[in-house]
Amino acid sequence: SRSINLAVIPGDGIGQEVVAEGLKVLSAVLPQDVKLETEEYDFGARRYHATGETLTDADLDALKRHDAILLGAIGDPSVPSGVLERGFLLKLRFAFDHHVNLRPSKLLPGVATPLAGEPEIDFVVVREGTEGPYTGNGGTIRKGTEHEVATEVSVNTAFGVERVVRDAFARAQARPRKKLALIHKNNVLTFAGHLWTNIFNKVAEEFPEVTTEYMHVDAATIYLVTQPERFDVIVTDNLFGDIVTDLAAAVSGGIGVAASGNINPSGDFPSMFEPVHGSAPDIAGQGKADPTATVLSVALLLRHLGYEAEAARIDDAVTADLSERTGKPARSTSEIGDALAVRVAG
Amino acid sequence: SRSINLAVIPGDGIGQEVVAEGLKVLSAVLPQDVKLETEEYDFGARRYHATGETLTDADLDALKRHDAILLGAIGDPSVPSGVLERGFLLKLRFAFDHHVNLRPSKLLPGVATPLAGEPEIDFVVVREGTEGPYTGNGGTIRKGTEHEVATEVSVNTAFGVERVVRDAFARAQARPRKKLALIHKNNVLTFAGHLWTNIFNKVAEEFPEVTTEYMHVDAATIYLVTQPERFDVIVTDNLFGDIVTDLAAAVSGGIGVAASGNINPSGDFPSMFEPVHGSAPDIAGQGKADPTATVLSVALLLRHLGYEAEAARIDDAVTADLSERTGKPARSTSEIGDALAVRVAG
Ligand SMILES: CC(C)[C@H](C(=O)O)[C@@H](O)C(=O)O
Ligand SMILES: CC(C)[C@H](C(=O)O)[C@@H](O)C(=O)O
Repeated sequence: SRSINLAVIPGDGIGQEVVAEGLKVLSAVLPQDVKLETEEYDFGARRYHATGETLTDADLDALKRHDAILLGAIGDPSVPSGVLERGFLLKLRFAFDHHVNLRPSKLLPGVATPLAGEPEIDFVVVREGTEGPYTGNGGTIRKGTEHEVATEVSVNTAFGVERVVRDAFARAQARPRKKLALIHKNNVLTFAGHLWTNIFNKVAEEFPEVTTEYMHVDAATIYLVTQPERFDVIVTDNLFGDIVTDLAAAVSGGIGVAASGNINPSGDFPSMFEPVHGSAPDIAGQGKADPTATVLSVALLLRHLGYEAEAARIDDAVTADLSERTGKPARSTSEIGDALAVRVAG
Repeated sequence: SRSINLAVIPGDGIGQEVVAEGLKVLSAVLPQDVKLETEEYDFGARRYHATGETLTDADLDALKRHDAILLGAIGDPSVPSGVLERGFLLKLRFAFDHHVNLRPSKLLPGVATPLAGEPEIDFVVVREGTEGPYTGNGGTIRKGTEHEVATEVSVNTAFGVERVVRDAFARAQARPRKKLALIHKNNVLTFAGHLWTNIFNKVAEEFPEVTTEYMHVDAATIYLVTQPERFDVIVTDNLFGDIVTDLAAAVSGGIGVAASGNINPSGDFPSMFEPVHGSAPDIAGQGKADPTATVLSVALLLRHLGYEAEAARIDDAVTADLSERTGKPARSTSEIGDALAVRVAG
């Protein structure tokens, strides 16, 4: 009989609340014969304050034994900026080699967008997750003096770029429009830019059906607000991907509905699924957070584990729920989760 | 008697056309007693193809003798990506220490924006121009092989960050709302991020009237489309500034009206003024380009040289021209320039 052994990391702020709804919907959608086991981990600000730890080797060993990881959100104003981001979130993405950071953007009917008109938005960003300016390479000399110098080194390898570019081409090939855009800044960051561009052009030869284009990251932000329908699949580096996926989320319904997967396609390590939004400490504990992004992340998780029909049921439930929101009073976090659980079970 | 000795670099694509209109408006706005001398330079793709040169030491010596530089656009598909950008544009910005890259965004009445509703947009970005990931530091090993590694090094110094942060605070102090936002990614790029954040907080103490906030670059892209009225002055690094100013231009009327100044406040070297848009080779030579961004760059140039009244006359002329565009047939590049010249002279 089938089973899913899930690591659950509620994290900080609204993480706890949204993850509870994600699990509610997960339980509701799974067929009877699938055994769901979950183990909760207490990573985040509280553990850091109590123990000084963010993510130990023992933690990584424990997490490694799961089929997948569901994360709420990590981050709290009581912890200095960077400590949990670098010490937990990025450490985990790097340790488990989550090189495909998958972030779909779809403007669903009835959902508000800051853009005028009725743009059609349905694309997916494949963000590289283990290289680029996120490696933590760099340093500081003469810290705190007027002669301080701080460097950040973006590291890009043929190995790392090619695998994510190939993944993006395969995704583009599988979609009806078969379009792939590379976003970089190859006219300024010429070393990394040429590596990305050359590998992109080389892999393109293996995918003759895929239409490709190259776009500088600055121009891409313009297209994302003026012609978002232009995009089908986007592949880009870790930092540019961070930036364009937040903008993409903003124009396609807000970060309340933006899901993401930190995927290791090899399966050597469990992949991690999380909403794009942060821990939103200002509204934590009030039942105000929208759990939709987490629920959609659960759909990505199911799809990754091979439960395509169940993932599609969640996507459909979210689409239906969102399309009926206009003009209705706001619901609480758990009311939205309940409604989605009913829909996926029905 | 007063005089302006201007270096004019039309450049590539639409550069020639828009610069001609910029000069037309400049001549029309200047009082009789100001002697305008211009010298044209042939930098860009044509010169590169003819001589292999982008910008020589002799060129820099010649440019140095001018009071300011007006640039159209540089770049052509016939030249490999990066050659003219790094070899001319960035070389000039770095050689003349253009550390304050000033980019105002104002949504003028009657101007179309991709955003819904009627957002109020009136802010200015102070982008650092001589450091960060733009230094060209980095390199490539094992080029073209499956073991290629390409690095890009972002270099940030206390000296470089403090002077631009101080400039931004002074600008914020001089504006009615007195607000300044620092945009960075200090939770991931912790070395550079802490340098920027610490200096920002230190300089803030000298400007108690200025209200400050910090924002990650990814979050900033969200606010730029959901709450652009939130911004007054923004200070940020070279790469983040490149990205957010294109997005800012897109939401506040498009790159057809986005002006910029590459300023050396010390006056040791001439400052350079240019539209944010590129050379747009697809519409070059057709009289279709909107010269407004160049004309507004001329206003920034005049303001920099102390001709505040004349700069204001140009701004007013552009405001009036833009507010009367809706529903009218499109005009050619020179028709728009003529109309603006008439307005500023009147
Ligand atoms: C919290 C931060 C480290 C993270 C990132 O930059 O990747 C976040 O912005 C994201 O996009 O998942
Ligand atoms: C052409 C390019 C080098 C330049 C930059 O990145 O600074 C342009 O995008 C700009 O914003 O002026």
